[in-house]
Amino acid sequence: MAHHFDRRKFLQYTGMAGGAFFLPGKSPAGQPLLLSNSEIGLSKWELETPSLCLELEVMEANLKKVHQALEGSGIGVRPHVKTHKSPYLAQLQMDAGAVGVCAAKLSESEIMLENGIPQVLMTGVNVTKGKIEKAMALRKRHPGFIQAVDNPKNAAELQDAARSAGVTADVVVDLDVIKRSGVPTGKPALELAQLVDRAPNLRFLGILAYDGGAQHMRGHAARKARTIQTFEPVVATYESMVKSGLNVEIFSGAGTGTYDMMGEVPGFTDVQVGSYLFMDTQYMAIGSRDNDTLYDDFDPSLTVMCTVINTNHPNRLITDSGAKAFTINKPGGMVIGEPDFSYNAGSDEYGTITFDRSNKTYRVGDRLEVIVPHCDPVINLYVRIYGIRRGKVEMIIPVMARGMSR
Amino acid sequence: MAHHFDRRKFLQYTGMAGGAFFLPGKSPAGQPLLLSNSEIGLSKWELETPSLCLELEVMEANLKKVHQALEGSGIGVRPHVKTHKSPYLAQLQMDAGAVGVCAAKLSESEIMLENGIPQVLMTGVNVTKGKIEKAMALRKRHPGFIQAVDNPKNAAELQDAARSAGVTADVVVDLDVIKRSGVPTGKPALELAQLVDRAPNLRFLGILAYDGGAQHMRGHAARKARTIQTFEPVVATYESMVKSGLNVEIFSGAGTGTYDMMGEVPGFTDVQVGSYLFMDTQYMAIGSRDNDTLYDDFDPSLTVMCTVINTNHPNRLITDSGAKAFTINKPGGMVIGEPDFSYNAGSDEYGTITFDRSNKTYRVGDRLEVIVPHCDPVINLYVRIYGIRRGKVEMIIPVMARGMSR
Repeated sequence: MAHHFDRRKFLQYTGMAGGAFFLPGKSPAGQPLLLSNSEIGLSKWELETPSLCLELEVMEANLKKVHQALEGSGIGVRPHVKTHKSPYLAQLQMDAGAVGVCAAKLSESEIMLENGIPQVLMTGVNVTKGKIEKAMALRKRHPGFIQAVDNPKNAAELQDAARSAGVTADVVVDLDVIKRSGVPTGKPALELAQLVDRAPNLRFLGILAYDGGAQHMRGHAARKARTIQTFEPVVATYESMVKSGLNVEIFSGAGTGTYDMMGEVPGFTDVQVGSYLFMDTQYMAIGSRDNDTLYDDFDPSLTVMCTVINTNHPNRLITDSGAKAFTINKPGGMVIGEPDFSYNAGSDEYGTITFDRSNKTYRVGDRLEVIVPHCDPVINLYVRIYGIRRGKVEMIIPVMARGMSR
Repeated sequence: MAHHFDRRKFLQYTGMAGGAFFLPGKSPAGQPLLLSNSEIGLSKWELETPSLCLELEVMEANLKKVHQALEGSGIGVRPHVKTHKSPYLAQLQMDAGAVGVCAAKLSESEIMLENGIPQVLMTGVNVTKGKIEKAMALRKRHPGFIQAVDNPKNAAELQDAARSAGVTADVVVDLDVIKRSGVPTGKPALELAQLVDRAPNLRFLGILAYDGGAQHMRGHAARKARTIQTFEPVVATYESMVKSGLNVEIFSGAGTGTYDMMGEVPGFTDVQVGSYLFMDTQYMAIGSRDNDTLYDDFDPSLTVMCTVINTNHPNRLITDSGAKAFTINKPGGMVIGEPDFSYNAGSDEYGTITFDRSNKTYRVGDRLEVIVPHCDPVINLYVRIYGIRRGKVEMIIPVMARGMSR
């Protein structure tokens, strides 16, 4: 993996900066910022808990795998940073060959662009005056900022704001596939694209179509069947746009559950994968092309280290990690090395593990390593991700866009 | 409500400090810190979204109500800051007459104590060497720090660490009532209390017994019946401790669902209410003494302002506020003024509202005000709480212990 982030320099840098907490935009090296403190070099088993840990080698392998799988297909990778909210990880994704990244929100886009990520496609819309103006100011500073639009009135407002700001803003049209965001496919989408294309201060770049519902369907064949069906009206709309002379440079969609089935969609350009970097128990349950029961295209790299704090009841362990460490998404966390454990994070501050059999006897103070239920909202709960290599903390990655839900 | 936080001074202070972001411990006035920026004075309907808003008058009334309800009962109020994670709000609770506050975690306790809250009872245990040492260092700086213990080995470790740190640490014994934390009631609890009492560097202060399961039971009578039953072994244990000559200054427990039924529990000293300040749809659903269908002892003061971003489908609105703005707790958020709306925050970035009838026609860009599903984890998602009075932003309260789950 070739990336311009020099490891030795970084280690010196973090070593020098022991105990410091860096704020956005203050990097002396002009690189994505990392938290650094005295925990560098600790074993992951020594960390106070709950701690969010990332196995760097597994993550790096996942980073490569998605590009290898799509090699020669003509389909690019545009990872969604709503998953990790970290400019550092976004930079690794860019260095691995991503064509750009996606962001969900304006504040999240801003954190990425202001920290060195040059290409950010914001998949959500900006519909209020304040956000539209802020988006245009962001576009003025960063020519790689692309935003979505899904209704004609909003397109007109974007045009007005772009003119006022003195910019030509890049815009993609979001197509409705799951009754969530997007303009209806067919004529409304074509007309919106033409409206954007005619607007003097907007540049039509293409389309988005994200089928969120397909990502977590069990069974590769079921996901593929649904995806092909969902994309039928999208493809028809795409073709009408091309026929009408529009420049559809971008035709983006799909996620970690469907990244490998887009080759059959005409015109499709890139996948918006996010969870592939980390995996979680929700994704592990959906099955892959070659494995009906376990999705194993990518390996789990993200875990929460937690501590057993009570063992008073048989077949039951209480931990210090509940809903505020894991979210309450189902299936729950998976304790590594204990396939029979069932982890319930329903309580805000406590985790409750129940089991019929365990591989060892647990005592108060023992650490457990748990694969997270749903990586996106879990990462959003943490200040920092511990980057682990060979069991030790190599770096501390700040979740810089944490809580940036605007 | 007498509190030493001078409003006029504060407004000057925040006015002066427009745009600044204060970090913990840097307050020039030595007071709990507040974020301040150009949003002061805005209408809550102008805020970019998602925004977490607190109606100050409603919150202040809730703050008074709990004390009024317990007046003359001999039962004190020890609010749990795991709900709000804000030293500023903890100070308001102290000023209203709280005997101290509870915190769930060590890092949360630290944020409170280092920001001027003098009395913090940590209801969770510290079982690892690092946390025990940190707890003793915290106790050395802050004599008002009390911590829980629920097993003899941990009591011995606390004693060793207290001796090493040169302190006498205040300790309460947590009793097991819902198979989560705590030492079994009866003999094990008595022996643990005696062990703590004998330890030269520990001071036994009393007991905790929190019935988390009772808080959200529907029906006041059902909650009361369960509470009295749950507390039977706790009371017997309490009485055995008193009989053995132990000084049980603290007998703490109960929450917003059971605060008004503890008068019949002999020896009980204070309620660990948290949600009473804000309320949420989970609590509103449990019913109160005088209202079977709506818990109305306290009024909802906490809302998320969100924005409609898509109206393409009939009887359906899409908002910019999903799981990362609301959590996925059930029941979902409640849109103020639209009793028929059902809010689904199952998607990370989008909210989906479905309805049969609405009181107005909604357009893209319209703001909605939504009561939160479960206040504790929702507040933990936000950087700041907007304090609203008469519709306008009066102050910005930083969620300083946000993400402090260690």
